[in-house]
Amino acid sequence: MIKKLIDGIKKTEAPIVVGLDPKTDFIPKRILDKAFSEFGPSQEAVAESFFLFNKEIVDNIYDLVPAVKPQVAMYEQFGLPGLEAYKKTIDYCHEKGLLVIADVKRGDIGSTSESYAIAHLGASKVGDTLIKGFDADFATVNPYLGSDGVKPFINVCNEFDKGIFVLVKTSNPSSGELQDKVADGKPLYETVGSLVETWGAESMDGSYSNVGAVVGATYPEMGKVLRDIMPHAFILVPGYGAQGGKGKDLVHFFDKDGLGAIVNSSRGIIAAWKNEKYGDPSQELLGEAARKAVLDMKEDIASALK
Amino acid sequence: MIKKLIDGIKKTEAPIVVGLDPKTDFIPKRILDKAFSEFGPSQEAVAESFFLFNKEIVDNIYDLVPAVKPQVAMYEQFGLPGLEAYKKTIDYCHEKGLLVIADVKRGDIGSTSESYAIAHLGASKVGDTLIKGFDADFATVNPYLGSDGVKPFINVCNEFDKGIFVLVKTSNPSSGELQDKVADGKPLYETVGSLVETWGAESMDGSYSNVGAVVGATYPEMGKVLRDIMPHAFILVPGYGAQGGKGKDLVHFFDKDGLGAIVNSSRGIIAAWKNEKYGDPSQELLGEAARKAVLDMKEDIASALK
Repeated sequence: MIKKLIDGIKKTEAPIVVGLDPKTDFIPKRILDKAFSEFGPSQEAVAESFFLFNKEIVDNIYDLVPAVKPQVAMYEQFGLPGLEAYKKTIDYCHEKGLLVIADVKRGDIGSTSESYAIAHLGASKVGDTLIKGFDADFATVNPYLGSDGVKPFINVCNEFDKGIFVLVKTSNPSSGELQDKVADGKPLYETVGSLVETWGAESMDGSYSNVGAVVGATYPEMGKVLRDIMPHAFILVPGYGAQGGKGKDLVHFFDKDGLGAIVNSSRGIIAAWKNEKYGDPSQELLGEAARKAVLDMKEDIASALK
Repeated sequence: MIKKLIDGIKKTEAPIVVGLDPKTDFIPKRILDKAFSEFGPSQEAVAESFFLFNKEIVDNIYDLVPAVKPQVAMYEQFGLPGLEAYKKTIDYCHEKGLLVIADVKRGDIGSTSESYAIAHLGASKVGDTLIKGFDADFATVNPYLGSDGVKPFINVCNEFDKGIFVLVKTSNPSSGELQDKVADGKPLYETVGSLVETWGAESMDGSYSNVGAVVGATYPEMGKVLRDIMPHAFILVPGYGAQGGKGKDLVHFFDKDGLGAIVNSSRGIIAAWKNEKYGDPSQELLGEAARKAVLDMKEDIASALK
């Protein structure tokens, strides 16, 4: 699966993933009004507004980027209707030719991790029928439980040609509380990085593995070290834009060939219409503004990588 | 909320939580046949069989234990119908007076963690209406992202009178890969234990905090240390029974007052009907066998605590 993502990056010349993390605050009034007039104040209304919102963004950016990353928590918050909008979003992105990274940060042990892997990447056997779950292309995975928690995901990746990104160093301010603890002479995130490289050997797909890593743009120096520790892991980089990361911070996440990393931006793109830089907010130019913000981000990264 | 759990433990004299982790392998043929004849080979059929299975167990154990713990991965694996069965299970358990610990092991940062907390414990504001999500009483939380990931859960606990159990030392064989790493002169699980005690101060509810910890029965010596490090944290103990933990291993997880811990068993109870000890498997005595297995477990723990 990582090969498909790399093909998409090469084709679009954009190592960019758009985070589809809807919040009602980000949704233009015209969309909210439409959904709420149809469904009243309900989970169904929010779910419908999320899907309409995502669709308008996707329709305007699908030719510019290889992938999107919906954050499942945003949808899960609105119960079953929310999760239905999540599934519809995944399916719609697939229709438009985008790969989908499910930001689910799941992780458990043994058969439970296997169930999560099947839920988000695989299919379950029902009688003699294989029935797909949410059917994303990649999922993010939490490593706190060790190999028992990650290997079932890798097995499902191998069976269904999918990929994962394991949390190594997250972008948030308090990520260091555990991840930076120094044990065996190195910070824990390096230990996790080494594990990612080891796990990844079981699912190579060209020069890279289907087992990638999450490393926050907000920690560029650590990104540099981790790039060396994990030569076969693609890095998913959150924290660009609204969280403070800039193009120049990203250089060391990439390999010499300009590959090896894909950068996420959510708010900076999906809420760009609220930024006067991209037009009058009262006009609610959701799709246009998202497109311009992606093009800006593409240029920022390209000029940093030059 | 932890007070309510303690009241339930005192009333039933059973510091026991029954893990509602259905798998088709555990479900009697009569239930599968009923569900599959109604829905054909589909997610809906599996979901219906899960709910019927849970209901029969709950009907036979609700007076014996204070709480149940559904593992959401089992349901998530079967998509939206699976998650509908999960929600129906929670609601049914509430009707029967049981508390529900949602084993979701969620964890993210900032507003994303808040969304997960709302999804599983709180309510979202839709217009002027508050709409509950899955509405469990407790949720399990992964600490790998640090305070940023946990505090939003605590805020929701305080707002809605709910509780969490933070993963400290998990029951699986490879849990030590990260959790046992020694940094600052102590293993990481002790650092997490100290954080749990600190976080817990923000949500005290009687002698204990609404912020508890998960510590596996399979690591009794670590449980002893963690009991001392976290005097105000209730410990949720998985790994009893099928994973190898025995009553005598549990002694040190409890306080001197016989409180402070609640022990989970899943397979040992919900699949007890397949064990000849509890009757002829061909008779599929699901509920009766579960009840006997709970009573056995209650005795095993009581005699260990004497």
